[in-house]
Amino acid sequence: MELFEAIAQRRDTRHFIPGIAVPDKLLKKIFAAASMAPSVGLSRPGRYVIISSLEKRTKILDLFKSSRDKAESKLDQENEKTKSRLHRQLKLEGIIEAPHGLLVFCEYPTTYVLGASEMPKALEYSVACAIQNIWLALTAEGYGLGWVSFFQEADIASLLDTEIPKNWLPMGYLCLGKPATDYAGKPMLENLGWSEEKEAHILDEKLKKITFR
Amino acid sequence: MELFEAIAQRRDTRHFIPGIAVPDKLLKKIFAAASMAPSVGLSRPGRYVIISSLEKRTKILDLFKSSRDKAESKLDQENEKTKSRLHRQLKLEGIIEAPHGLLVFCEYPTTYVLGASEMPKALEYSVACAIQNIWLALTAEGYGLGWVSFFQEADIASLLDTEIPKNWLPMGYLCLGKPATDYAGKPMLENLGWSEEKEAHILDEKLKKITFR
Repeated sequence: MELFEAIAQRRDTRHFIPGIAVPDKLLKKIFAAASMAPSVGLSRPGRYVIISSLEKRTKILDLFKSSRDKAESKLDQENEKTKSRLHRQLKLEGIIEAPHGLLVFCEYPTTYVLGASEMPKALEYSVACAIQNIWLALTAEGYGLGWVSFFQEADIASLLDTEIPKNWLPMGYLCLGKPATDYAGKPMLENLGWSEEKEAHILDEKLKKITFR
Repeated sequence: MELFEAIAQRRDTRHFIPGIAVPDKLLKKIFAAASMAPSVGLSRPGRYVIISSLEKRTKILDLFKSSRDKAESKLDQENEKTKSRLHRQLKLEGIIEAPHGLLVFCEYPTTYVLGASEMPKALEYSVACAIQNIWLALTAEGYGLGWVSFFQEADIASLLDTEIPKNWLPMGYLCLGKPATDYAGKPMLENLGWSEEKEAHILDEKLKKITFR
């Protein structure tokens, strides 16, 4: 698929066709795309844990639900009744329908990383770029991804039976699978009127907005 | 250009042909790509300040140099003589050759963002994904980008004459321009033997490495 087509068709998918797993051949391809992503000082700090068992995914769903409840109570407290009502109706994840997912971590190296000495978070940004490569690669092949960020770091770390190295920072859970919808070619939240902003914020040196025609 | 071709050809460019600016039409296209990037709760938190004046770029170069000096002294102190020597020889930026660049910020909204309540850094990850879209879009059109992260946040914020809003977090300076080389189709640092790792780290639920064949 052409690059701009993939960029435009990529959706944050929360509706998956249950039971259709990403084929091994495509998994191989998306991780190749991840390894070709930019990474500060060529550190390639992404760590991808494939979660397939229903037991683990059910645990992840439980964590998600309690995190979501917290967010909704907060909206209620802030008197954001309309947002809170809409929030409760939204489908925000496909953790069970998507037959597998990726827990993504950023490994903070213990040795010097070129370019990360002054801005260590460039390591996490590198992993985010790799996730975007994975996302586009899935889109190009008719599959989809939904990034679930309704977790606290400590929650994610507690999920695995094995102890996670202390220098691994959890960045989210990605549901992988076959989308059940393309949300009419627009972000699901845009369809629902959750947010109206569509343009990138481009500014000149005096922070005045620029529009390209 | 086909997606996987763009992913494979994308380089962290530090060698630019001086004086060739990215045409306005392409700037428009890369910001369209940025606005189509995934963003937590459809927050679209990226703020892009176009830097063109030589005066500002010279200031950015000065900041870069002092940051680089610090990194090299640190390597010396840690007795990493070989790395330090190589580090001093590396060309790490094209701030002056690239006729313009982007200072990229992440705006932390003051109101509720869906999905960012438990993991606020998802906002910064969204901007990193947008940068990757910009990067691929430039690559597909024969242009390039170099992400300079040799700064401290406060340094970047001090660069503009205008005061930067307190909730804008600087994420780096991107040199934009026409690449003078493709580094033989591999990351420049790989050519120089700086880093050897090439594979993505894919793991099962017990953190055992998986290889797809």
